[in-house]
Amino acid sequence: MSMEALGEFERIRRFFAPLAGPGGLGLVDDAGLIDCAAGRRLVITADAIVAGVHYLPDDPPDLVARKLLRVNLSDLAAMGARPLHYVLTTALPAGLGPEWLARFADGLAEDQARFGIDLLGGDSVGTHGSAVLSLTAIGEVAAGQEIRRSGAELGDLVWVSGTIGDAALGLDLLRGSHPDLPPQDRDYLVRRFRVPDPRTELGPRLIGVARAMIDVSDGLLADLGHICETSQAAAVIEVGQLPLSSAARRIVERDPNLLPRLAAAGDDYELLFAAPAGATAAITALSSLLDLPVTRIGRIEEGTGARLVDDGGRPIPLQATGYRHF
Amino acid sequence: MSMEALGEFERIRRFFAPLAGPGGLGLVDDAGLIDCAAGRRLVITADAIVAGVHYLPDDPPDLVARKLLRVNLSDLAAMGARPLHYVLTTALPAGLGPEWLARFADGLAEDQARFGIDLLGGDSVGTHGSAVLSLTAIGEVAAGQEIRRSGAELGDLVWVSGTIGDAALGLDLLRGSHPDLPPQDRDYLVRRFRVPDPRTELGPRLIGVARAMIDVSDGLLADLGHICETSQAAAVIEVGQLPLSSAARRIVERDPNLLPRLAAAGDDYELLFAAPAGATAAITALSSLLDLPVTRIGRIEEGTGARLVDDGGRPIPLQATGYRHF
Repeated sequence: MSMEALGEFERIRRFFAPLAGPGGLGLVDDAGLIDCAAGRRLVITADAIVAGVHYLPDDPPDLVARKLLRVNLSDLAAMGARPLHYVLTTALPAGLGPEWLARFADGLAEDQARFGIDLLGGDSVGTHGSAVLSLTAIGEVAAGQEIRRSGAELGDLVWVSGTIGDAALGLDLLRGSHPDLPPQDRDYLVRRFRVPDPRTELGPRLIGVARAMIDVSDGLLADLGHICETSQAAAVIEVGQLPLSSAARRIVERDPNLLPRLAAAGDDYELLFAAPAGATAAITALSSLLDLPVTRIGRIEEGTGARLVDDGGRPIPLQATGYRHF
Repeated sequence: MSMEALGEFERIRRFFAPLAGPGGLGLVDDAGLIDCAAGRRLVITADAIVAGVHYLPDDPPDLVARKLLRVNLSDLAAMGARPLHYVLTTALPAGLGPEWLARFADGLAEDQARFGIDLLGGDSVGTHGSAVLSLTAIGEVAAGQEIRRSGAELGDLVWVSGTIGDAALGLDLLRGSHPDLPPQDRDYLVRRFRVPDPRTELGPRLIGVARAMIDVSDGLLADLGHICETSQAAAVIEVGQLPLSSAARRIVERDPNLLPRLAAAGDDYELLFAAPAGATAAITALSSLLDLPVTRIGRIEEGTGARLVDDGGRPIPLQATGYRHF
C-alpha cells in the first residue's frame, strides 16, 4: 500500500477506508481483490488530474473528486462496460489538510452510491509540488462485446449523446466571459464543466448497436478523429445538427461564431459513436428509455479525418480541433 | 485515456504504446482488457511516488521506473499473487523531456520482460509541480488462496526472505555516510535501495505455507506490527537472527548500534510472514529451490505489537519503529 509511513495510515483510515467495498479488505492489506467469472472481461482505464492544470486549486474538493471519478466512468461507458470498482492514488501538498480530504472523500462517497461502485485500494503520499490525483477504474463487459474505437464502417451514421459545448462554455464563464448571463444558465454550464454526467446507462446498452465509440474529452472533432484514424475512414459532421443545451443556444444566438468552436470543445464526456443506419430505431428507443437526447450529427465516409460542414455541405475551417486546458 | 490533448498522444505513442500487451489494445482505446476465468481472483495494488519525496529528481530514470514497478510487484507477491499487468499514470513537469521518458520507458521494458508482465493503459499529463508517478499492478491468485495480513496464529514462527537493512544503508551511503566503504559494498547497498528484488517467485509458492504475509516497505517492525494488529497477536523478533548481507554485516561490525535500527528499516521489499512450526521443512525446501535465504527471526505470541529482543530475551528499545524518506 505504501512507500511512506507517516500520516498516510491516518489518511487512509479516516478518509478512504470507509469508501472500501468487500474486495478492498478494509484497505488493511497490500491489495484489493476482484472475483472473476468465465465469459466476463474486465475493462481498466486510468486518468490523472493535476491542480493548476486540470482543476483550480481552490475548486470545491468534492467536485474535484466527482469529476475525477466521472471522467473514468465515462471511459468505461465508451467501451460499453459496466463500472465495478476503482483504485485511487493521491499525492497531496502539506497545505491540503483534513478538511480538504474530508470534502474530497464526501464527493467520492456520493458518487460511489450513485454509480454503484466501491474503492479497492490505492496509496496516499505527500508532495512538495502540485496535488496529483490518479484514478484507475475497473468495469466489466461480456468477453468480445466491448465497443472499440476502430469498428466504424462506411455509411455508418455518427451520433452523440446529450449536448455539446456546455463544459467549454462553463469554463469560459469561470474565466469571466458572458458576465450578463442569467444565473440559472451560468449555474447549469459551470456545473456541466465541473461535474460531467458519464453515460454509464447508455454505454452498455449500445453493445450490439454501436460499431465504434469514444467519449468526448479532447473535443468532439478530435475524438471523432480518433475513431476515423483507428477505423481507417473519414467522418463529416453537420454543424447545424450539433445538439445544444438551452443555455448554450442562448449564448450562440448572441455570438454565432462560437458554434464551430463548440464542435472542437472537450470535457463534455458525452458518448460519440458510429452505428449502421439500420440501428436508428434502436437508438431512438434507447434515447426515450433513458430520457437522454441522442442526436445524429453526421456520417462515416471514405477518406481520412473528421471535418465540419455547414448546412450547404461547405467545409467550415477550424483554428484547432483540439481543446486546451488552462 | 486523457484529460489533456497536447503532447500526451505523442508521449503515449512513442514511449508507452511499445510496452502494451494484447490487452492494452495498442493504447489507442479508452481502456485495456483482462480476460477472466472461473476460480481466479484478480489482485490489485497501487503505489505513487513523487520526485523529491520517494526518489531524487536526478536519479537515473530507468531505475526510478524499475523501483516503481517492483514495489508494486512486491505488494502482489505479499498476497501470494502472480503478476499479470500494470496501468501507469505519469504527471511530469515540462523540464523532463523525451530523453528522460525514453530512459524511464527502457527501465519498464527491461523489467516487463524480467517479470513477464505488460502495460494495459494509463494516462500521461503535465504538471507545474513535482513529477508524480502512479502505478496500479494487477495479479492473480486462485480464489480464496490469497495470503492476507490477518492470519497469524499464536505459536507461528516469523520468517523473512533475503536480507534486511540493505536499502536503508544504501540510502545512508547516498547521503554521504561511510565514505570509506569498499566500492563493491557501496554498489551493492545502493542498488538494493534503488532496485529492490520483489519476491515474485517466493510469494505465490507460500500459498498453503504462510498464514499471514506482508512485504517490508515501511520497516520490518512496523510491517510486522501490521500483521500483529490485523491478526490480534504480538510478535517478538530476536535481533541476533536478523539476516544481514555481507556488506551490511561489515558496516554493523564497525558500528554495532546500527543493528537495532536495521530492524526498523524499510524499503527492503522482502517478504515477512508467519507460518506454523510444521511448515519449517517446506520453507527450507523453498529457500533451497529458489536459492534465496529465508530466515526464521521470531515468533507470534499473545499480546499486541511487534518488539525486538536481544539474545538474552531482553527488550531493545527503539527510537521509532517507522522509517522516513528524505
